[in-house]
Amino acid sequence: MERDQLPWLTVAEAARLIEGKAISPVELTRAVLDRIEKAESKVNAYITVLRERALEEAAQAERELGRGARRGPLHGIPLAVKDLFYTRDARTTCGSKVLADWTPDYDATCVVKLREAGAVLVGKTNLHEFAAGSTTNNPHFGPTHNPWDLEHIPGGSSGGSGAAVAAGLALAALGTDTGGSVRSPCSQCSLVGLKPTYGLVSRYGVFPLSWSLDHVGPMARTAEDCALLLQALAGHDSQDSSSADLTVPNYGAALAGGVRGLRVGVLGEYLEQADQEVADLVTRAVGVLEELGAHTEAVALPQAREYAAAAGNTISWSEAASIHEEWLRSRPQDYGEDVRARFRLGAMLLAGHYHRAQRLRTLVQREMSGVMQRFDVLVSPTNPIPSPRIGEQVVKLRGREYPIFGPKATMPRFTRLFNLTGQPTASVPCGFTADGLPVGMQVAGRLFEDAMVLRVAHAYQGATSWHTRRPPI
Amino acid sequence: MERDQLPWLTVAEAARLIEGKAISPVELTRAVLDRIEKAESKVNAYITVLRERALEEAAQAERELGRGARRGPLHGIPLAVKDLFYTRDARTTCGSKVLADWTPDYDATCVVKLREAGAVLVGKTNLHEFAAGSTTNNPHFGPTHNPWDLEHIPGGSSGGSGAAVAAGLALAALGTDTGGSVRSPCSQCSLVGLKPTYGLVSRYGVFPLSWSLDHVGPMARTAEDCALLLQALAGHDSQDSSSADLTVPNYGAALAGGVRGLRVGVLGEYLEQADQEVADLVTRAVGVLEELGAHTEAVALPQAREYAAAAGNTISWSEAASIHEEWLRSRPQDYGEDVRARFRLGAMLLAGHYHRAQRLRTLVQREMSGVMQRFDVLVSPTNPIPSPRIGEQVVKLRGREYPIFGPKATMPRFTRLFNLTGQPTASVPCGFTADGLPVGMQVAGRLFEDAMVLRVAHAYQGATSWHTRRPPI
Repeated sequence: MERDQLPWLTVAEAARLIEGKAISPVELTRAVLDRIEKAESKVNAYITVLRERALEEAAQAERELGRGARRGPLHGIPLAVKDLFYTRDARTTCGSKVLADWTPDYDATCVVKLREAGAVLVGKTNLHEFAAGSTTNNPHFGPTHNPWDLEHIPGGSSGGSGAAVAAGLALAALGTDTGGSVRSPCSQCSLVGLKPTYGLVSRYGVFPLSWSLDHVGPMARTAEDCALLLQALAGHDSQDSSSADLTVPNYGAALAGGVRGLRVGVLGEYLEQADQEVADLVTRAVGVLEELGAHTEAVALPQAREYAAAAGNTISWSEAASIHEEWLRSRPQDYGEDVRARFRLGAMLLAGHYHRAQRLRTLVQREMSGVMQRFDVLVSPTNPIPSPRIGEQVVKLRGREYPIFGPKATMPRFTRLFNLTGQPTASVPCGFTADGLPVGMQVAGRLFEDAMVLRVAHAYQGATSWHTRRPPI
Repeated sequence: MERDQLPWLTVAEAARLIEGKAISPVELTRAVLDRIEKAESKVNAYITVLRERALEEAAQAERELGRGARRGPLHGIPLAVKDLFYTRDARTTCGSKVLADWTPDYDATCVVKLREAGAVLVGKTNLHEFAAGSTTNNPHFGPTHNPWDLEHIPGGSSGGSGAAVAAGLALAALGTDTGGSVRSPCSQCSLVGLKPTYGLVSRYGVFPLSWSLDHVGPMARTAEDCALLLQALAGHDSQDSSSADLTVPNYGAALAGGVRGLRVGVLGEYLEQADQEVADLVTRAVGVLEELGAHTEAVALPQAREYAAAAGNTISWSEAASIHEEWLRSRPQDYGEDVRARFRLGAMLLAGHYHRAQRLRTLVQREMSGVMQRFDVLVSPTNPIPSPRIGEQVVKLRGREYPIFGPKATMPRFTRLFNLTGQPTASVPCGFTADGLPVGMQVAGRLFEDAMVLRVAHAYQGATSWHTRRPPI
């Protein structure tokens, strides 16, 4: 295999090649680092590239393989993590000026688990400052560019992770998702991203945005890769009080189930509200699921329509403001304007607003819990619009212009509902607009049925080839 | 047995007499209603006495017994509930003017369960308005008087339930406890009261004060009676989202275990901070536990000392303010001055204050969880002072005067910690001051080890006779 082809391997493919000794961890890591050297200056996916350390880790992985001690499918695989996962031997900026020079004194549980699985950490990716936005237009470390069109954003807040994997600068990555921050960049970068069930993956050592909505999740080229990462990450962590103490199933084994006979609820309202090209592509993707044997049926969520945005915004901004309270007072000038404005808004919310938001959240959860008795998964577009241009303030939606941060076009519009409910939810590539921008289909399952979500995404990917396209970069 | 002695029976004694057909439900209920006729005008324990209905229920219970269909130990027993338990055939005032004429359209789960157990509901007891205070000095329905000294308060907020049982106006009662509102009136009325583990007893159909701190609990003359009531009340309720789904143990069977070999932590700081007479009586009670074979050891809770009051007040008043928001705006004049002031204070709290309070609560919970690995129960005085006079603004504590609502003498000072942690916690009578006012010892156990708390209280009651004294009324 040509060395310049290695960075485009899926994790599963690379794992098989490593297992069969067709490629070595050092070879693979070098190929990815070379690719970073070539493309990173255009993409700006990373805040910190851990070149030397990655090579050491790869060499270590190789030595272990040499003595027959393969740790599993992630052994020797070059991965990246969003730069709010704590790493004790590399700075953890959270995309901020406030923490620009901070190195934590311990590793996040997820980082520990990836290392225990033998993975090679190639770097820490750019993000929307403190994960508090959806563009990854970072005022301190520069904007990340979408590999599919460098003038466009990669989505966010885990935009660096999305761009890195899409551009071949890592085989897969970790992100966090408070309102869509894993799914949205995956949709905009043509990747599969999974927000696992709330409580399934530890958040210990992950800088919080909003503790009742934050999730950690894998971002990769395929559902199969997400299953491999989830297998390594899932499980109880006594150091995270929201961590669920449950037996972790075999996600890989569940992938092959197909969708025949599954009941798929189609969120018709989201389709109607989305950009026409987006809606058409997702409608076609639903057609593929039908051809594969799924039963589809339109479903409405009137409570979510009424309350999800208000509840999600109130909860996330007030929790975030609490976390940032001291710094907002002592060094407000160190925040980007957009993030400071959001946190300041959150700081003005009364306890009563928060309580009301949590009550509305309960209504939304109850409605969802009723609906999920009738469906195995729900599907919708992941985002209402394709990736906008960097700095763009106005976007077109069904022929009309809307402010990009207004209620119509706002990115978390279809994703944040599933942060309120905590359900496992993925985005899977389902096509490209006429301008060549990727579009994703969102797939949401029942609580702790992450395997079902991955199974549907895997079946869809088995019947389509969107994920095999490479960006023009 | 003389009819005027019947109201002084414990639930367990009355149950045995009913089972043995020595007394009948109608006879017992009439005796209690006669006693209400005689003493209620002095005590003002009830907002609503359900005389006719109680007699019908007693007659029904008697008919069932006649055909051999005894439902269990509560069959035919006259009980009372605090007037914030919903009853669909009697008004549920919550001690307020706002709901003075309100009759809910369903029964609280606890009321349903008591009825299914065959109990006779004799009335709905007075309380501090909306349970938002500790005196039961109710501006709309008048103050409840302490049967042990009518010039004194019965404690609160479940003061009507405490006074009713203490005065023989019911054999036992239900109260609610957000910061001590079951335990405090039991301490001040010489009763046993249990705040069960958070989540063990359904709160469906119980008007909330503060949803993350509210507990429903039994109030009776003995730990044995509390066990009988808890047995009828405990268990999962899908209509209460905080309800725990666990198997309910046999509380009665666990009573006889004794305290030999148990590890009892003594909250030394609470003893030092309490009124001298209170501290002396509780110290003597601890001595009784030692004589019975318990190992006692002083224990300190520095995090709780620092944070419990701030966290408890912030959480309870901000949650309460949210519940009352609309009424506070539309009819503020219908609230008593003290309750309105508390709710208005709560309405001014920011979401950030609430978040900080919940984080401090987590610190307190962690400290407690560590301590409870070393002890089976913790003991302390229930209240820092004996029952103050009605309307009293200043109380003596160790020779100095303090405002009764100031931080030193405030009633929830020793109790609210266990609302923050959710632990099962009881108050058990442990003596009387020179002025003849009752004093209670608080006993707290591990989460869901309610049986252990009742067992310690039962062992103590087996060795003492404070609970057999009758008030001078």
